[in-house]
Amino acid sequence: MRAVQISSPGAAFETTERALPEVPRGHVLVRVAACGICHSDGMAAAGLASSYPRVPGHEVAGTVESVGEGVVQWTEGQRVGVGWFGGACFVCDSCRRGDFISCRSLKVTGLTFDGGYADYVLAPADALAAVPDGLSDAEAAPLMCAGVTTFNGLRNSGARAGDVVAVLGLGGLGHLGVQFASRMGFETVAIARGAEKEQFARELGAHHYIDSTTADVAAELRELGGASVVLATVTDAHAMAVTVPGLTPRGRLVVLGVPHEPLTVSAGDIVGGSRLVAGHASGSAKDSEDTLRFAALTGVRPLIETYPLEKAGDGFERMMSGKARFRVVLTVD
Amino acid sequence: MRAVQISSPGAAFETTERALPEVPRGHVLVRVAACGICHSDGMAAAGLASSYPRVPGHEVAGTVESVGEGVVQWTEGQRVGVGWFGGACFVCDSCRRGDFISCRSLKVTGLTFDGGYADYVLAPADALAAVPDGLSDAEAAPLMCAGVTTFNGLRNSGARAGDVVAVLGLGGLGHLGVQFASRMGFETVAIARGAEKEQFARELGAHHYIDSTTADVAAELRELGGASVVLATVTDAHAMAVTVPGLTPRGRLVVLGVPHEPLTVSAGDIVGGSRLVAGHASGSAKDSEDTLRFAALTGVRPLIETYPLEKAGDGFERMMSGKARFRVVLTVD
Amino acid sequence: MRAVQISSPGAAFETTERALPEVPRGHVLVRVAACGICHSDGMAAAGLASSYPRVPGHEVAGTVESVGEGVVQWTEGQRVGVGWFGGACFVCDSCRRGDFISCRSLKVTGLTFDGGYADYVLAPADALAAVPDGLSDAEAAPLMCAGVTTFNGLRNSGARAGDVVAVLGLGGLGHLGVQFASRMGFETVAIARGAEKEQFARELGAHHYIDSTTADVAAELRELGGASVVLATVTDAHAMAVTVPGLTPRGRLVVLGVPHEPLTVSAGDIVGGSRLVAGHASGSAKDSEDTLRFAALTGVRPLIETYPLEKAGDGFERMMSGKARFRVVLTVD
Amino acid sequence: MRAVQISSPGAAFETTERALPEVPRGHVLVRVAACGICHSDGMAAAGLASSYPRVPGHEVAGTVESVGEGVVQWTEGQRVGVGWFGGACFVCDSCRRGDFISCRSLKVTGLTFDGGYADYVLAPADALAAVPDGLSDAEAAPLMCAGVTTFNGLRNSGARAGDVVAVLGLGGLGHLGVQFASRMGFETVAIARGAEKEQFARELGAHHYIDSTTADVAAELRELGGASVVLATVTDAHAMAVTVPGLTPRGRLVVLGVPHEPLTVSAGDIVGGSRLVAGHASGSAKDSEDTLRFAALTGVRPLIETYPLEKAGDGFERMMSGKARFRVVLTVD
Repeated sequence: MRAVQISSPGAAFETTERALPEVPRGHVLVRVAACGICHSDGMAAAGLASSYPRVPGHEVAGTVESVGEGVVQWTEGQRVGVGWFGGACFVCDSCRRGDFISCRSLKVTGLTFDGGYADYVLAPADALAAVPDGLSDAEAAPLMCAGVTTFNGLRNSGARAGDVVAVLGLGGLGHLGVQFASRMGFETVAIARGAEKEQFARELGAHHYIDSTTADVAAELRELGGASVVLATVTDAHAMAVTVPGLTPRGRLVVLGVPHEPLTVSAGDIVGGSRLVAGHASGSAKDSEDTLRFAALTGVRPLIETYPLEKAGDGFERMMSGKARFRVVLTVD
Repeated sequence: MRAVQISSPGAAFETTERALPEVPRGHVLVRVAACGICHSDGMAAAGLASSYPRVPGHEVAGTVESVGEGVVQWTEGQRVGVGWFGGACFVCDSCRRGDFISCRSLKVTGLTFDGGYADYVLAPADALAAVPDGLSDAEAAPLMCAGVTTFNGLRNSGARAGDVVAVLGLGGLGHLGVQFASRMGFETVAIARGAEKEQFARELGAHHYIDSTTADVAAELRELGGASVVLATVTDAHAMAVTVPGLTPRGRLVVLGVPHEPLTVSAGDIVGGSRLVAGHASGSAKDSEDTLRFAALTGVRPLIETYPLEKAGDGFERMMSGKARFRVVLTVD
Repeated sequence: MRAVQISSPGAAFETTERALPEVPRGHVLVRVAACGICHSDGMAAAGLASSYPRVPGHEVAGTVESVGEGVVQWTEGQRVGVGWFGGACFVCDSCRRGDFISCRSLKVTGLTFDGGYADYVLAPADALAAVPDGLSDAEAAPLMCAGVTTFNGLRNSGARAGDVVAVLGLGGLGHLGVQFASRMGFETVAIARGAEKEQFARELGAHHYIDSTTADVAAELRELGGASVVLATVTDAHAMAVTVPGLTPRGRLVVLGVPHEPLTVSAGDIVGGSRLVAGHASGSAKDSEDTLRFAALTGVRPLIETYPLEKAGDGFERMMSGKARFRVVLTVD
Repeated sequence: MRAVQISSPGAAFETTERALPEVPRGHVLVRVAACGICHSDGMAAAGLASSYPRVPGHEVAGTVESVGEGVVQWTEGQRVGVGWFGGACFVCDSCRRGDFISCRSLKVTGLTFDGGYADYVLAPADALAAVPDGLSDAEAAPLMCAGVTTFNGLRNSGARAGDVVAVLGLGGLGHLGVQFASRMGFETVAIARGAEKEQFARELGAHHYIDSTTADVAAELRELGGASVVLATVTDAHAMAVTVPGLTPRGRLVVLGVPHEPLTVSAGDIVGGSRLVAGHASGSAKDSEDTLRFAALTGVRPLIETYPLEKAGDGFERMMSGKARFRVVLTVD
């Protein structure tokens, strides 16, 4: 099998040949059909992998090649995805409470074990999500991370249908967030940089558009009655913080990504109005499955550019350039 | 009637004689028996009153003297309290959703209209809370602000009985917060500065004590399994922020007070673990009524020092000195 | 002004001429443009009006003709609706908690005071909802009762986007429920009597259809993974009860209407699976406003047959016949 | 090892000698110190066991004797309990959502596998709960079923501290429910048959007592402002149903046990007031652990009568007679 790996912190991608791994108890070997590229794939190169060499890639779609001992829930040939959630320990407090994504020993695909920049991925059985008919592999792949993060962030935000919900940012996550929000019945506001993105935002389903380079974002949100939720898909802490006064009372800023700088909010803005700043960590395998099912049902699709596996480095550069429209997916023959 | 007023921004308290006001439609004249002193009473002097002269005081306990036209729910002689919540507009979006404390035109006792440093207070009928038997006036008074803020913050925090709940600070609010938390069935942690406060904290009901001058607060909380809630009764933004990594996954920091400096948290601390930073704004008149009823039922009592009305200035200084144990109440004959 | 009134319990509709009423403090005179007919309009004839003669009609759309003293939130010429919720007392426990629809002294339009089978309605200011552009009067009218009941029942049901939600019944309420459910992002199941309604259900947005005359409803729901919510828009208690085993664990049956017979469920069906049977009482004026805004935003529209005011009796009979498609609206010139 | 088993449906308890079982992968052998007797232990005799002979008993407290392959979370000598929850499948939809007690293939101790009327129990590792210091084995045992059911039912009921919460019934479950409710800060009402139980109810922590043989239960509850929650610990469907009109708006009847007859409520009682009837199914192993920790923290203790293991039949008869005060526990030397 081919695999695109990183050999040490700071190293570049290199394509290698490997033997197919044995499939241990409780694991599944997945034949990869597509693997999305995510900004956080750079974390392997940044020294955050559990060991090296490491194959990045946590937006995997493919089919079950074979299953290990004790695996009863997946069968050969079944279409599945593997995402950021790479399996839980089942014995820590969070797991025993059923909150798998908060597992103290959470496994992360492409960091804790080898990911999807390869012909095959070997994953714990509990990390898999079923892929429904009606989604191609390349469409399903980005939904395993960018998709579940935004979908799950929105459906657990406390917003009710009809509420004003703003999506901050219109990139890989944001363009999915806008689609999800409008199909959930939210009065959807897209906030992005530049007037030229408005039409695209509306095509995705946004009812309103705010150009953050010229507008007072919070004032515009208040004009609409205030946002019950702002889903922050950017990593600019300041851009997040300035939206807080645009929230309704009891409204919440949902933070999906981790900016380098700390997040600074005025306590006055959250105490008056009883507002919340809420972190949101992706989702479990079942959450991903719900995401895929919702996308298939309502027509949400990632906009993607595809690269063949052997061009993984080019694809990653394209993704990091910020120019990709809107998600890069590696396709594997 | 006597009233202790502030005549202009920055001015000192002065005792004056006034005529008893007429009681307009929808209002109630309350004969004051006791009025707690709160740090925020200084806001009148700080130029935040709606007009001058202004009588501070939003922790009022007394009896109904007379009622205006259209007031059917209060009767002469009834024991009542008036707190920070000084009445709502009933026509803004928040009011129409039933969220009175988030009213866009919220009236604040002692800022929007004259408060309780006086023989009488004239208040909107919807600002009143019934005081139950079993609470004296002087005990009830501080519960109308310090009490409802902590009680309501805790009962709406999402914590369930048995959860670890930490109260940060052991002053006017904190000493009530610890009592409330333990009587709500939380495994209660008091966090304060100095080892000498431990015994007192335990007497109030704390099961654990953390001396923040020597301990790593977050590490100690994690040692206990993590706090589901940290109720921040201090105004030190940094002291709040360092508790966040001590929260359980899905845990929340509840911010009651408004520090001067902004609140800065690491986004990594809230995204991993899906934690929340939640502002909490006091409560409505009914929330205050619930607070009083709970205190009467479970034996929660503020620890107070009393001053006669004419010594309001001394009492205020005492409160601001930080030495009061733990709340100062003006008593009115 | 013309008014269609009922003079005593059991009496028929009669058209009369009345003088325009004075507009008391806190009230608004609304010029009626359209008034929906609801099954419960018969309650006035059934002896449940507070006094006689009484004008039925609680699905009113029109414009503000004039406002009484103290009314600041509505202005002449503004488009408004009045629904089942005819105003709250603001002083009972429920009102003080902001739960207006649970008001102990709830006023009901067309029962407590004269309703919309007339040229004008005089209503408490807090009973009004703003009607957005984009909805005609005749479209808005049924949304003031049939609409808010289903919309509000769904958005407060606890179901999250993507969940399977079933709407039981496809009449006046049900045909709106299906539209709302699908536009809220639920995987929507319509349950009705007869195979011939399937196509219509799908046109309204249903993803699945169950013919309850031939299918085992609960089994079909389980086939779909179980329903998180069944919204019962029928008044057949047995038809409701048989859906309970088709709920997912933690799922809920939401009961909107009051059948004559009691509701009987197997305790085993609700204890195993921790299921709920939840009554749902319509909504407040603000809830109605949210309903109208959502309908305008997402294209939900009642299907109506119209009758002129003077044919109110014919319209009522048509509605009660069960043959109306799907809601009858009186139009007033 | 000794075991008290039932050999076939309808058969009586018989004491046998067995070989100690092998400990398979993922399982733990627990040396039993105490085992509570529950009414539902009769289900094994009633033909509901998965196979025969079957050892009843799902309120087990003891120590870990040895652990099977792959068990990392339990160690020899650790004090543990095993309750009704006998392990989940981890692969059904409910398990993947973290809702283990709703597992489609839920294992029940003493029905699916041999329970605690024995010297040893062999249980899946995920079925165990840690027993804290401060609880004896005999005290811990009944908390593994009667305890977790009431504790978990209350903490998930939506009631907030200070709310009126009524516990219907004062037997094995009810006497724990009253203790839990009062220590959670609820204004606690005990409802039972006969005036003579009032003093005892108050000693357990009840603030109010209603004798259901003479009082109009719903009216008495309304007198107190209405109950936010009625926790039904009886199996008399009618006794449950009559409490519904005593609930506050939005209040809920929590049904813990399964009466033979169906549960019949007036739809009018639940639609007006938006009330709920909610089934509640026990809890997971972690829920039991929370129960034990809460009991140790707050002083909740079951009142028990003890019988030696070899007198299991006598103990069971005593329990079924309804005369036990209030829970029978088998002690194992």
